[in-house]
This record gives sequence, C-alpha cells and structure tokens, in this order.
Amino acid sequence: MDHATTTGQPLVDFRTEPARYRHWKVAIDGPVATLAMDVKEDGGLRPGYELKLNSYDLGVDIELYDAVQRLRFEHPEVGAVIITSGKERIFCAGANIRMLGQSSHAWKVNFCKFTNETRNGIEEASAESGQCYLAMVNGPCAGGGYELALATEWIVMADDGNTTVSLPEVPLLAVLPGTGGLTRLVDKRHVRRDRADFFSTTEEGVKGQRAVTWGLVDEVVPRTKLEEIAKARATERAAKSDRPRHANGIALTPLERTIDADTIRYPFVTCVVDRARGLAEITVQGPQTAPPSDTAAIQAEGTGFWPLAIARALDDLILHLRTNEEEIGLWVLKTAGDADRVEAYDRLLAEHTGDWLAREVRLYLKRVFKRLDVSSRSLFAIVEPGSCFVGTLLELVLAADRSYMLDGTFEGSGSPAPTVRVTAMNFGAYPMVNGLTRLASRFLAEPARVDDLKRRLGEPLDATAAAEAGLVTFTPDDIDWDDEVRLALEARAAFSPDALTGMEASLRFGGPETLESKIFARLTAWQNWIFQRPNAVGPKGALQVYGSGQRGEFDRRRV
Amino acid sequence: MDHATTTGQPLVDFRTEPARYRHWKVAIDGPVATLAMDVKEDGGLRPGYELKLNSYDLGVDIELYDAVQRLRFEHPEVGAVIITSGKERIFCAGANIRMLGQSSHAWKVNFCKFTNETRNGIEEASAESGQCYLAMVNGPCAGGGYELALATEWIVMADDGNTTVSLPEVPLLAVLPGTGGLTRLVDKRHVRRDRADFFSTTEEGVKGQRAVTWGLVDEVVPRTKLEEIAKARATERAAKSDRPRHANGIALTPLERTIDADTIRYPFVTCVVDRARGLAEITVQGPQTAPPSDTAAIQAEGTGFWPLAIARALDDLILHLRTNEEEIGLWVLKTAGDADRVEAYDRLLAEHTGDWLAREVRLYLKRVFKRLDVSSRSLFAIVEPGSCFVGTLLELVLAADRSYMLDGTFEGSGSPAPTVRVTAMNFGAYPMVNGLTRLASRFLAEPARVDDLKRRLGEPLDATAAAEAGLVTFTPDDIDWDDEVRLALEARAAFSPDALTGMEASLRFGGPETLESKIFARLTAWQNWIFQRPNAVGPKGALQVYGSGQRGEFDRRRV
Repeated sequence: MDHATTTGQPLVDFRTEPARYRHWKVAIDGPVATLAMDVKEDGGLRPGYELKLNSYDLGVDIELYDAVQRLRFEHPEVGAVIITSGKERIFCAGANIRMLGQSSHAWKVNFCKFTNETRNGIEEASAESGQCYLAMVNGPCAGGGYELALATEWIVMADDGNTTVSLPEVPLLAVLPGTGGLTRLVDKRHVRRDRADFFSTTEEGVKGQRAVTWGLVDEVVPRTKLEEIAKARATERAAKSDRPRHANGIALTPLERTIDADTIRYPFVTCVVDRARGLAEITVQGPQTAPPSDTAAIQAEGTGFWPLAIARALDDLILHLRTNEEEIGLWVLKTAGDADRVEAYDRLLAEHTGDWLAREVRLYLKRVFKRLDVSSRSLFAIVEPGSCFVGTLLELVLAADRSYMLDGTFEGSGSPAPTVRVTAMNFGAYPMVNGLTRLASRFLAEPARVDDLKRRLGEPLDATAAAEAGLVTFTPDDIDWDDEVRLALEARAAFSPDALTGMEASLRFGGPETLESKIFARLTAWQNWIFQRPNAVGPKGALQVYGSGQRGEFDRRRV
Repeated sequence: MDHATTTGQPLVDFRTEPARYRHWKVAIDGPVATLAMDVKEDGGLRPGYELKLNSYDLGVDIELYDAVQRLRFEHPEVGAVIITSGKERIFCAGANIRMLGQSSHAWKVNFCKFTNETRNGIEEASAESGQCYLAMVNGPCAGGGYELALATEWIVMADDGNTTVSLPEVPLLAVLPGTGGLTRLVDKRHVRRDRADFFSTTEEGVKGQRAVTWGLVDEVVPRTKLEEIAKARATERAAKSDRPRHANGIALTPLERTIDADTIRYPFVTCVVDRARGLAEITVQGPQTAPPSDTAAIQAEGTGFWPLAIARALDDLILHLRTNEEEIGLWVLKTAGDADRVEAYDRLLAEHTGDWLAREVRLYLKRVFKRLDVSSRSLFAIVEPGSCFVGTLLELVLAADRSYMLDGTFEGSGSPAPTVRVTAMNFGAYPMVNGLTRLASRFLAEPARVDDLKRRLGEPLDATAAAEAGLVTFTPDDIDWDDEVRLALEARAAFSPDALTGMEASLRFGGPETLESKIFARLTAWQNWIFQRPNAVGPKGALQVYGSGQRGEFDRRRV
C-alpha cells in the first residue's frame, strides 16, 4: 500500500501469504482442511469502519482468495475444506455495511466482483479440482456470510436457538445480496421461488428443520455434534477425491512485481500504462526455454513453470488494474516470443490432464481468462511480428473485443509476418463463464468452423488464413496499420466507459447461460443499478443510514 | 388522456384502433400484409419533441402493438408481414432522443420494456402463429429502427449509397441499444462478437455486401428491385403458413374500461387501487356461462369469448398500472367464480390446439402472463373461498412471488373452503420467458412433482393438499388469516421498490435462459444501470446534450 494511484486512494495489493493473515486461520488435518474466519475488528483495509461480527471487507476476502489458492497448489493431500467461523457466537454477518456505505460506486462493484470470483473459484475447486468445500455454520450466518456458505457443496448448521441463515439485504439495506445469493438459492439449491422470496425478505432468517425442508441448508445437527458431523462429512468427501494423498505441493512463493512509474513488471508479463491515451499495454512473454519433460519436472519448476508464472502475473495484474487504475478503460493485449515453445508447453499441458498439478495450472489459467472476460475493460488484441499467439495465448485474442493482425511484415523490418496457431488447449481447456469455449461462443453461427480448426492444430496461420478462419477481426497491411490501429484505440478510449461496460457484457457471452454467467449478468447488473439508486445510496438511502437508528426513506415509484 | 394520475402526467391509454393511427399504415394484399412506418413529426405523445426521421416514442409503439395484435386476430389469411418505412429517404432513426432526454428514469425503463415486449411478440407471431415478419429496409435504419428489423425473420436491404444499418447508441448517446439489439446480434443472428463490437461502436453503420457477410441483414438488392423481392420473400413464407386462408377473423372491438376514482373495471376484471397501502387488488372473474361448444362458436363469441376477454383486460390493466400507477408496487391477485366452468374453458382450449383462433387466444394469454412476470411489481396471490384458481387462472398463483391460501373456511361464512386445480393448460401452454412452464421453473429441485401433478388434472386441492403439492406458499387458517396476510402486505409495501425489483427479477426465472430472458435480464439490467449514470443522463451526459452541438463529457472511471 505504498503507491498513490489514480483512484486517489492507497494502492490495494492483492498479494499476501499466510504469515500475514489477520482474519483467517488455516488448519490442515490430513485430507481435511479447515478455514476459520476470525476477523480482526480493527483490521479493515481502509479507515472508517470496524469489522464487527465477523463482517468482511476486501482485505478479508483477499486473504480468503489467497488461502483457497494455496490449498489447491500447496496441498494436494487436501480433498475437502470446511469453512467455518473462529468466533464463538457468530458465523459471519456478511460484507461490512459501513464499509459499503462509505465506498464509491466503483469500489462497491469491484468488491462484489472479486468476492464473486472467489466464491466461483471455490465451486470450481469442488467440481473440478477434487477439493470439495463444506460449510459448518456455528452461529448466525447472514448476508454475505450465507452467500459464502452457499458457495460450498454441503451446509451443516447448528440446531440451536441462535443459529440462523438469512439474507437480510433487501429488508435491511435496500440492496441485493451481492455475491450470488439470490441466484444460488434458485439455480444451485433450487429453492422454490416463493420460499426464496419469503426468505430473502425476512430479516431474522430461517433456522432449524425449516431451513432443511426449504433446501436452505443440507443438515441441522445439535450444537454439541456439529464439529464431529462436519468433520465426518468432509472426510467422506475427501475420500472420493482424486487428488494424490502423498504428493508434495508446490509453494506459491511471493510473486515478484515491480511498479516503476507507469510500468508494472512481473516475470513474463509487462504492463505499460499510457494515461494520455487511457490505455494499458499488456505484453505476455513466451517461455525462454523448452518445457520440462514430465510432471516431476513441472513440480520441480514450481512457480517458475511458465504457464503458472503467466497465470499468477496476469491474475495479479488484472486485479491491480481493475482496482487501482479505474481510468484506464482499454487493455491492449500483446505477446512476444517463440511460438514453437508456446506450442510445446500446450502439448505438455494437454498430455498430462490426469496430473493434479498440470490440472491446477490449467484451471488457474481458465480462471484468469474468465477474470479478463468480466473485467469491464475494453480488450483489443494486437498481433504483430514477433508475437506468439498460440493456443493458450491465443485465448487472449479470442477474449478480446476486437483484434488487429498485421498482414505481412513492416517494411524494412527483418521480422517475418506474424502468424497465430490453435492448439488442443483452445477446444475445452478454458471455458468461459457461459460454459462454452471462446471458439464455440465465437462461432455460434457456424459451429463447423470449430471442427475445421480442430484439424489444423499447430498450423501457423498468417493474416489471410487467420481472417478466413474467423480468428481475427481486421488485418491491415503495413501501409494502413499505424493509422487504423491508432484510430481504433483513440475512438475506443473516447466512448462512455459505462456504455462500453454494458455493451461488452452483452456481446461477449453469446450462447447459453450458467449459474456463473447469471451471477455476472442478471444479478450483478441489477445490483449495480441498485447501487446507483437513491433508495439505497442517497442521503436517506437504507445503506447510508444503516446503524444510525434511522430507517431509510424511499421514493415509492417502481421502475 | 383525460385522467390525472399519480405520475403527475396525463394518463397514457394503450387502447387504440386503426382509424386513429397517426404513424402506421397497414395494407393487406392477400396473404401478405405491409406495416409501413410513417411517423407524424408533430404527433408525439407528450410535448417537447418532434418525431423527425421516423423516430418513435411510446405513442408510435402503441400503434405498432395494436397493429400486430389485429393482424393476428383479425386476419387469419395473412401469413407474412413486411415491416417497412412509408417515407422516401429514411427507414427509421430509432427511439426519439429528445423524448428520452426529457423523460424520467421510470419512463425510459417502461418505454423500453413495452417496446421489447412488442418485438418479442413479433418474433412469437413468426414462430408460433404462422404469421412471419420480414423487414424491407428502404433507407437508413438506425438504433431502434434496426432493432425492429432484428425482430423479424428476414431483413432485405436496399443496396444503395444511402441505406445502412447501424446501432449508434454507444458512440453517439452513451447508452445501449435498448430494445434487444445487442442480444439479437450475437444470440439470434449469431454475428461474430468482434464484428458485433465494431458494428456497435460505428456511428455510420454498415451497408451493402459487408452487412450480408457479417450477418447483419439477410440480403441486399438493388433499390429498384427492393419491393418486388421483399414481396416475393414474404409470399414464400406466407405459403408455408398454417393459418387458414379463407377463415374470417374476429374484430378486436373497443375494449370497455371504466375508471371510477380508484376502481378500474373491465368485463371480467376489476382492479381497486389502495393508495394508502400502496397496492392494487386485481380480481379476475370466472366465466358466467358454459364454454362454447366448438370453434365456430368461439369465433361467434369474438371478443366476448371469456379467455380472450380476460387476456385483453389483464393486458391493458398491466400496461395501465405500470405506466400510470408507478407508486403502486404490489399487485394482489384474486379470482372469483365457478371453478368447474374455468376448467371447462381450459378443456376447450386444450382440445382445439389446432384451431388458429384458439391458438391465438392461448398465445395471447401466454404473452399476458409473461408481461406479468416482467412487470417489476411484487405479485401476491390470495386464495380465498369463492375463488377459482383453476388451470389458466392458476398461472396467476404460479406467477406470484408468494401465495396465501385459506386453510378451511371463514367462521360463520357459508362458503366452502377454497381449492385450486391444475389442468392440461398448466403443462406447456404458457411458458415463461425462460422457456419453462411456471410449474417446471418452480420445481427445479423436484421435477417429479410436475409429473405427479399431471396425474391430478381437475382434482380440487384444498389448502393442505395444495401446500403438500407445493402449489401455494402459506396456508393460514381462519384464526391467523387476517393478521398474517395483512402483515405480509404491509411489510412488502414498506421495502425499497428498487431492491424488490432486482430481487424479484433474480428469483422469478430459475432455470435456463433464452434470447428473450437475456433481453430482460442481462441487457435490460445493464441499460437501466446506464440510464442512471451521469455519463448518459447527467447535465453533460451524452443523452442530454445530444443535438445541442456539444459532445458528452465523461467520467472516465470504469466500473
């Protein structure tokens, strides 16, 4: 937090490690880990609020994200994770209301987005990583607390007079549960809509058997048996995990990053912020060496393993730019390096889908590309000589709103014309939030194009071939390149940021919707709207007056 | 427009008829109808703007809706409809910008909702009614004009220097195309997302062959051939229609409505607005007589046919309340009448699915129930003695956010305890915007419940049985009824209207998403957000300064 930023606030750093945790306790007992939330009241990320009743802010959630990541990479032996509270009388009161009340609109939206991504990642760990999450609800579990529980696969709750689940946002704060709660009620747990309606408008929540009957939790048990039963459920699930019980994890060593004026550097990723033009140029460097020969060698490389290194760098960079560089609305995606080597890494990942670590690396890349998709920044990919948009890195072109690829080479330069290549990794390794690959979502009109491309793995496609295959948008030649690209970037940076956010969210996800895409589309968009409405955030809005003893005053007009 | 309303504006009346049209010309030539938009510049619904360049406001769209309805009911012989412009040099410039600029937030949102519903209805006519819509683009076709064309199944465009399709909202106005345009680009026409991105940020639009190659239109033809080719395409489609070429339509006679203080009366539907409690009580009356014996008799009854009469009344009432009674946020749904007769009508509709008119009546009811679902009002159903929530009318209970059914009877009253019944019409006749029946969407957790209910057609279910079957939410008895219902209504009316809108939109549509649900969810929610943002609607927002010669000034922060 040592850099000033364009937000006028101290820089938020998403990097942390267990030794620095203030709010979470991690305990590992063989195949079962426990993540206990024990929020330090005076440990808020920003001044001005106290994190009472295990309520959380972004700082608490940054630690949770870090813990979830480490369990995946550092603990192959862990097959189940219990999320619970480290406090006696409360599970979690949800996001801190005073923090929300004093936050800017952008901060609220960004905070919800990150917490959503962490919870989606928890579900992904359960579904795809063999690390199943459960919630042990040992006290009142409200709002974002219950939404965290909803992101797990089994909720066991104490059956006492004190412990309830609730979503009190609508009646108490005039906002929505902002972290997927409503969507998970009806679309994950399939709670009947009228019961969900009652539940979501009832401050005091639901407890005991009714919570089970309605599907709000999976099991209620006597308080005295809670830990024993939660542990038993977790052990059952861990026993079904395909993670190796006796493998070694890899340590997520501190991520190297330097910020030097407007240049942010990581191993293999560099970002230059151009404030005058309102854009950030992000360049991903290809690998410097041939890939390791087998999974043991991947393990030995640890965080130096190139695909993992770029995943970590891009992940941090995306979060950094979103949070600390709000005025930079256009991200220009570039690559530089040896295309053959990138392809060789993709072959390695594709060959070892059964290896737990190779799988974790792939899933991490998947999550990073998904973060890019929902980042509410315009994404342009630039394919120039010397680039290596191959397979995994080609996803950057496919994630972009638009791409420009040089047709031929620059006059007088010695570099050959750029090419792009598809690899096996473009056909299922990195689905979007809508469940489709970027290729499938791109070619809804002509799904046969996806099949055609499957027969061209590894083939270098020049601008003409790439355009014919539908992989890139525009292919100016040397003569037109500078003007066309420059004008496109200028035009983009001049449009209304809000209109672009809404437009991009509408155009990027053609095809089906999933639980996850519904959270980012329907739920988030409505919440963002409510986060602008005087009934919530005006001087007498419920979110603002909360805790003052006053009730919110509402404009009664329905929109 | 003779009544003052709570909006402080003249009352908007959605009822009209061809003799009163000011903006549309309907021509019928055998199986092909032509709807020509010819907007009267000084014919705006409200003062303060001129409807130049075939731009439209709500008044123009009310006529379009009426014309579409009449083509369905009054013209069984019409199998295809060409939408075109009656002006020489312009197809349509979209929604009128000055009108939007001077409108309240609620008006904008309501306007977009109604125009969306009309366009969805156009698509439904093509898909289910045997009346296929085509667009003949005979001049620049921008924004809402292009979105209207997108709602048709075939777009043929003049290939001249003047005629383009465009969505200039983002670059020009800093808002989204608000009538499904972005969604239809990628999810209906499957335009590649990067091309859709370029197109939606390019003021001047796309013309000629590129528009065909990109999938923005289906065909470009020389201006001199435009009418001939459009007519030929329409005739081809009409030839495939299953509508009867030689049947007589039924006249949509003027809808009888009286507004007497706070009571609105139609045949079979009464609504009492209770301003003190912030709610409207809507009572649907069951049929007075047994149903007609066959389709000829249905035809003879015309608009007196009970299911059609309630569809028309509810349709108008919903639009009236939405637009003219913004502060009434809770609609309480009741029925009264003979349950056996309602069931008999349902049997009649279920028996004659092949009859064009019975089909039209069913589809109209389907659209009315869908309108209810997306009305952004809380819906409570009250099931009391004397009610007739059977089959088609049971959809009101299933559409409600919550329902209360009296268990037993009121002490001292002679009326028997209320019952509800399912009929064949609950199992497919009235899908929601998400493509599922209300029963299927309700029982996502237990789809077998739907099958169980299929075996209980026509069986009167008392409160206990209805609750066990999952059809109703709460079943208080005589002793608890008054307090429980009263408190629930009071509590609902006290919450923030905005939070309720977002919550209900999130809970009502469990299950899959469709083109239509994506329009009402993702697209509409983002647009509503943008409609609150200073970049669009602030004093220097692009929507406000449009036409002043100034450019919008934007807060460059991305959210």
